[in-house]
Amino acid sequence: MMRMLALVGSLRKESYNLRLVLTMQERYRDRFSLEVADLASLPLYNQDAEDNPPEPVRRLKQKVAEADGVIIATPEYNWSIPGVLKNALDWLSRGERVLVQKPVLTVGVTPFMLGTIRAQLHLREILAAPGISARVLPPAGNEILITFAKDKFEEPNGRLVHAPTLELLDTVVDKFLDLVRSAGTTGR
Amino acid sequence: MMRMLALVGSLRKESYNLRLVLTMQERYRDRFSLEVADLASLPLYNQDAEDNPPEPVRRLKQKVAEADGVIIATPEYNWSIPGVLKNALDWLSRGERVLVQKPVLTVGVTPFMLGTIRAQLHLREILAAPGISARVLPPAGNEILITFAKDKFEEPNGRLVHAPTLELLDTVVDKFLDLVRSAGTTGR
Amino acid sequence: MMRMLALVGSLRKESYNLRLVLTMQERYRDRFSLEVADLASLPLYNQDAEDNPPEPVRRLKQKVAEADGVIIATPEYNWSIPGVLKNALDWLSRGERVLVQKPVLTVGVTPFMLGTIRAQLHLREILAAPGISARVLPPAGNEILITFAKDKFEEPNGRLVHAPTLELLDTVVDKFLDLVRSAGTTGR
Amino acid sequence: MMRMLALVGSLRKESYNLRLVLTMQERYRDRFSLEVADLASLPLYNQDAEDNPPEPVRRLKQKVAEADGVIIATPEYNWSIPGVLKNALDWLSRGERVLVQKPVLTVGVTPFMLGTIRAQLHLREILAAPGISARVLPPAGNEILITFAKDKFEEPNGRLVHAPTLELLDTVVDKFLDLVRSAGTTGR
Repeated sequence: MMRMLALVGSLRKESYNLRLVLTMQERYRDRFSLEVADLASLPLYNQDAEDNPPEPVRRLKQKVAEADGVIIATPEYNWSIPGVLKNALDWLSRGERVLVQKPVLTVGVTPFMLGTIRAQLHLREILAAPGISARVLPPAGNEILITFAKDKFEEPNGRLVHAPTLELLDTVVDKFLDLVRSAGTTGR
Repeated sequence: MMRMLALVGSLRKESYNLRLVLTMQERYRDRFSLEVADLASLPLYNQDAEDNPPEPVRRLKQKVAEADGVIIATPEYNWSIPGVLKNALDWLSRGERVLVQKPVLTVGVTPFMLGTIRAQLHLREILAAPGISARVLPPAGNEILITFAKDKFEEPNGRLVHAPTLELLDTVVDKFLDLVRSAGTTGR
Repeated sequence: MMRMLALVGSLRKESYNLRLVLTMQERYRDRFSLEVADLASLPLYNQDAEDNPPEPVRRLKQKVAEADGVIIATPEYNWSIPGVLKNALDWLSRGERVLVQKPVLTVGVTPFMLGTIRAQLHLREILAAPGISARVLPPAGNEILITFAKDKFEEPNGRLVHAPTLELLDTVVDKFLDLVRSAGTTGR
Repeated sequence: MMRMLALVGSLRKESYNLRLVLTMQERYRDRFSLEVADLASLPLYNQDAEDNPPEPVRRLKQKVAEADGVIIATPEYNWSIPGVLKNALDWLSRGERVLVQKPVLTVGVTPFMLGTIRAQLHLREILAAPGISARVLPPAGNEILITFAKDKFEEPNGRLVHAPTLELLDTVVDKFLDLVRSAGTTGR
């Protein structure tokens, strides 16, 4: 069975983005396993340490290397991705570049109206940079931009239950799995 | 005398961006003091902690609040600003919003050809977000995008010495000081 | 009374963006006049012609020069502003640079969910370029991103009637008029 | 032999971007034909006309449909792509969507230091929009950002002669041809 790894940009306990990932973990458990990466243990990136990275960085790199695909769930902080998520990507981009050609799906949830689009626009540019060069699912028709989260998740602290959003998610996950399979057979 | 605070996006010891800030500290010492903020002590941003922020966050917020202006020196990591810098801005944008209407100058140095322009494009969008809303010096004519750093700084680990770049910096700093003064008199 | 000029990015007859501008023309007619510029007569920009621009370009430049402020209403075409609007801005940016320091408000309407945000992000970068350097109302709190137009305009071909959107528009127009007044007194 | 079509964003006679395309036309004539599309004849895009597009639009669409790949050469006007180029893309994105899954290479030349990077960042977002969805060569390692054109082209009005830039171009064209071939065999 496929193994996926989730990077979640928010560290708060009741994060909607975490809850979206947990929804996916349950909903697609017959199709892939989905582990939530530990970004909270990472130190702040320092280039002086990149040749001999701290243990949490090494663990994260190994998990990315072993995954068939990566799902990045990002809130929008100040019209971009969180520092927490960028810090993880900065570590992953140096030394052994474990994200190169790795299939990636980006998703985002927000309590507000624009669905993390500004964060995801920045994120897509970042994922195309030479040290990352991930194989990102093309955005046309595949954008998961979940607005007004309070109306779409069970409260308190529950799962995504909004039927039209779940249907869209199903469609996009299907296409992402196609991408993962084609990456596997064409070699990386 | 004016008091400025510098946020430096790189934590490595011989960072060109730090060396640019140290150059400015010395070169303009008759016009303003320039303290380098401690971003390395900040924990990763967690919204659950924002009502009662850790001590390093409180110290940083106080320094920003007391400064007449902020100079942000950013390298470009993966076609955006470093997670280190975004993490600091995320903390500064919540709770007491100390950057609102604060005069800000952005500068960047890179060993390569594009002078951190992608990082600064992201940075300007971030600085316009509601929780930050800084008073950024308009970019036209004022962009400090220092390319090919190795040819422009004294090595090892010295200051910016490239005359045309220093002249441009002088001009832009003059305009930034005008902005700081006008912000002071019009009230924030 | 103040004189404003509107640049509308869509040329179709029943354009929502045109209808938004016509709504503003009527709603604020006691506060400013609002003329819709003729972008349809402009030829495609050609640098070889910029020293001796065609008559429609000259007329547009004069109207911009005489206006106290400019309102740009943009649809989103292919995740950016329309070529029609960019073509007008390209002409306005060369030769006599009539948009430099001109107060500008950007607004956008779309039948879809993201309210032209991608177009407006591009537009703000464009308006900051040296040949334009307009004095754009800062976006925080002032974004007019009208989603799902069909539910908010009278059909067929009528005005914006959605009360919460009109209230937001009133607030933002107030702030824009403050900007126009301050530009007038501080000189351009 | 492969057939390529070039879209050139500048209409001026001595355009560096046109001269880059002409350089490619000659340099790679044993590998593909390269025709320069006529963007100057296109009217301004008007949605009311899209069901029955004017003749120059129809001709352009047919040429794109018949090409194995498209090379877009863009100057940077006001920190984005020219209105001329966006106008062509707006026409191409509606009705019969001839750019969907079409292999595309983007290149840019400028007399200045940043090599059209801002234009190309906008362009890549535009090319990913649903009505276009082109198969763009990934940018990492493949960016053709030609700076300081005066030093790299024969004057007056000659070809690109700067050896290191030509070598980079050769490498990137090789990769683009691989992309075109793989698009052909996997079907569009």
